[in-house]
Amino acid sequence: MIRINENYRKLQSSYLFSEIAKRVAAHQEAHPEADIIKLGIGDVTCPLPPACVKAFHEGIEALADETTFKGYGPEQGYPFLRDAIAAHDFQSRNADISSDEIFISDGAKCDTGNIQELFATDIKVAIPDPVYPVYLDTNVMAGRSGAFREGRYGGLVYMECHADQGYLPALPSEPVDLIYLCFPNNPTGAVISAAGLKEWVDFAKDNKALILFDAAYEAFIRDAQLPRSIYEIEGAREVAIEFRSFSKTAGFTGTRCAYTVVPKSCRAFDASGSPQKLHDLWNRRHTTKFNGVSYPVQCAAAAVYSPEGQDQTRELIDYYLNNAAIIRKEMLGLGFQLAGGENAPYLWINTGQDAWAFFDRLLTQAGVVTTPGPGFGRCGEGHIRISAFNSLEKVKAAMQRIKTALH
Amino acid sequence: MIRINENYRKLQSSYLFSEIAKRVAAHQEAHPEADIIKLGIGDVTCPLPPACVKAFHEGIEALADETTFKGYGPEQGYPFLRDAIAAHDFQSRNADISSDEIFISDGAKCDTGNIQELFATDIKVAIPDPVYPVYLDTNVMAGRSGAFREGRYGGLVYMECHADQGYLPALPSEPVDLIYLCFPNNPTGAVISAAGLKEWVDFAKDNKALILFDAAYEAFIRDAQLPRSIYEIEGAREVAIEFRSFSKTAGFTGTRCAYTVVPKSCRAFDASGSPQKLHDLWNRRHTTKFNGVSYPVQCAAAAVYSPEGQDQTRELIDYYLNNAAIIRKEMLGLGFQLAGGENAPYLWINTGQDAWAFFDRLLTQAGVVTTPGPGFGRCGEGHIRISAFNSLEKVKAAMQRIKTALH
Repeated sequence: MIRINENYRKLQSSYLFSEIAKRVAAHQEAHPEADIIKLGIGDVTCPLPPACVKAFHEGIEALADETTFKGYGPEQGYPFLRDAIAAHDFQSRNADISSDEIFISDGAKCDTGNIQELFATDIKVAIPDPVYPVYLDTNVMAGRSGAFREGRYGGLVYMECHADQGYLPALPSEPVDLIYLCFPNNPTGAVISAAGLKEWVDFAKDNKALILFDAAYEAFIRDAQLPRSIYEIEGAREVAIEFRSFSKTAGFTGTRCAYTVVPKSCRAFDASGSPQKLHDLWNRRHTTKFNGVSYPVQCAAAAVYSPEGQDQTRELIDYYLNNAAIIRKEMLGLGFQLAGGENAPYLWINTGQDAWAFFDRLLTQAGVVTTPGPGFGRCGEGHIRISAFNSLEKVKAAMQRIKTALH
Repeated sequence: MIRINENYRKLQSSYLFSEIAKRVAAHQEAHPEADIIKLGIGDVTCPLPPACVKAFHEGIEALADETTFKGYGPEQGYPFLRDAIAAHDFQSRNADISSDEIFISDGAKCDTGNIQELFATDIKVAIPDPVYPVYLDTNVMAGRSGAFREGRYGGLVYMECHADQGYLPALPSEPVDLIYLCFPNNPTGAVISAAGLKEWVDFAKDNKALILFDAAYEAFIRDAQLPRSIYEIEGAREVAIEFRSFSKTAGFTGTRCAYTVVPKSCRAFDASGSPQKLHDLWNRRHTTKFNGVSYPVQCAAAAVYSPEGQDQTRELIDYYLNNAAIIRKEMLGLGFQLAGGENAPYLWINTGQDAWAFFDRLLTQAGVVTTPGPGFGRCGEGHIRISAFNSLEKVKAAMQRIKTALH
């Protein structure tokens, strides 16, 4: 008898986005004239940078001609892209990462979801709360959790992030093996200092743990003092895997390209306690279950590193950061405690009341859609996430409406 | 302590393609003048069909303009592509498949590799020998096998495919839960009749088993009597998942697009023996660990179903099928027993001697690269695979050289 993976039955359905959609639809039906502005979803709205568009078209032309046609490429990505990434994103910042430590993929969601396959099922996993739900769900699917009770899965270590610590997780007080971190954070927009990150690297080293560092929003960092890669921290090469994406950097959410860095000195341990190279394991996983990213997409991604691409992506990020600054200024002006909106596209607002009630107030009184915090975990109660991904005009209009509604 | 998935340590390294590359390089070095023709790899060589190229470019233009920009798409794929697939590939052949049973992905390798996550780890898995190694390796990684001994992993059921049965596997004589089938077959090129496939569907139904049907080479079927989808067989909707790809159909190996069909009535069983919908489980897996295929790539794939696309892809397949027919005629003329080369791009040659010795003979005496059968399993001993994926000129030249060398 073919039997299912019973762990899937532990998964809780996320009603977050469907519940949001339902409430928005109800409001729209009751007020057909309402011009609703969406600051809820973490999806980009600006078109692809022209340098990427040009390279994307050229990539297709190569496939249209027998003499330049490309079939299967290297599963790990083409050297032209891996080399550009290593040079621009790491070596230029004194992070010692070589191109053969970079694995090109079709998304950070896929990579952060698949990486847990490399590890034993009975390890202890530490996950922040609030959190991007993929870290949680993929570990539940793999059998690393108990049942769901009172809003949480058994067997996992939830690292609570509260306002009094600037929404940063504290070092775990119990032994953990695998630690998920995300900076700039989704959903809170919090960032971490080099000194703060060094504590995590040291903790991982001291406890033979591993850090999975999600840096998908790295491009939003403008403060020169902040680390943009965990590999800027001494010792990180042994204890950290980093995830990056072109989704937010260059507006690739519909184009699909990302990468994962697994240094050759990064280790986990076998049953006898001997260190094993995670680079070899991830390479085996990647070449067995993945067949490379579309060649024209890789051409488009590589164009990010051209002089024009660098200018254009910086301009793109600046645009969203300006939106974030406007939201931040207005929400602070209204007296809210908040995090994010600086070096990050998200703002995490302490609403001082029930999150869904506040969501409803913004929807019905201002016609603005946000994301209620509880969708990201129990610590999201009382909070909403506002996203800077929209046009400047709409962001300005939304903030004007919120000011009018809440004053 | 962060510990690894110990199952990865059971995996055998595949030396096949690196060993082939080593031998080819050695021959090339000894004979710099040698013009080697490669009929080894299963990768396409003809450029993308013009209809796909045009739609691919148009997809990019949509991303280049703010008013038509696409961010995250549906993880399952855009309706325009799912609808076209359901209508053309299934409903037109009286296979009752609807568009919401189709999941667009970036490759059949990914899907055939990931699908096993839905099942319990202690099920009994039946895999053909010879076989596409991904089926095997992904089950080993997930812990469904014992150690590797004498060329085989413990705990799996190997379904041997020999010349006397036309390289078709026989129904298992012991109970099995998950059955991998691939027709037209890689590596043997064997095809299965509707009556033959019906036996497997009935077996799965009678034994509460599930069939994973890899139809990546379906486009090569020209015999109108042969089933192109398992859903042409009565009862298959309950007991089979089918995998398809644009890789060979439309030359998408470097473009990346495929799909998996999970009918809503397809079931597996939970621990209590109750049926569970695999559609729900795969949807959960797909939406949690995947973020959709690149929008322009989906546009290119949908163009396969336009009238021009249908003509152009048929012409493309005809080109390779003509190559296959030439190889078949010549190898039969040389007195070899073989399978494939009709309704399939691969030929499976019974060499009557050691596979690697024969490989070396073709390489050194004819300058032609093939794939030794043992790379696909123990039953590949004594066989080589010849691929029809190359230009007509090179295929003709290769066969002329082989004739001269072997006569």
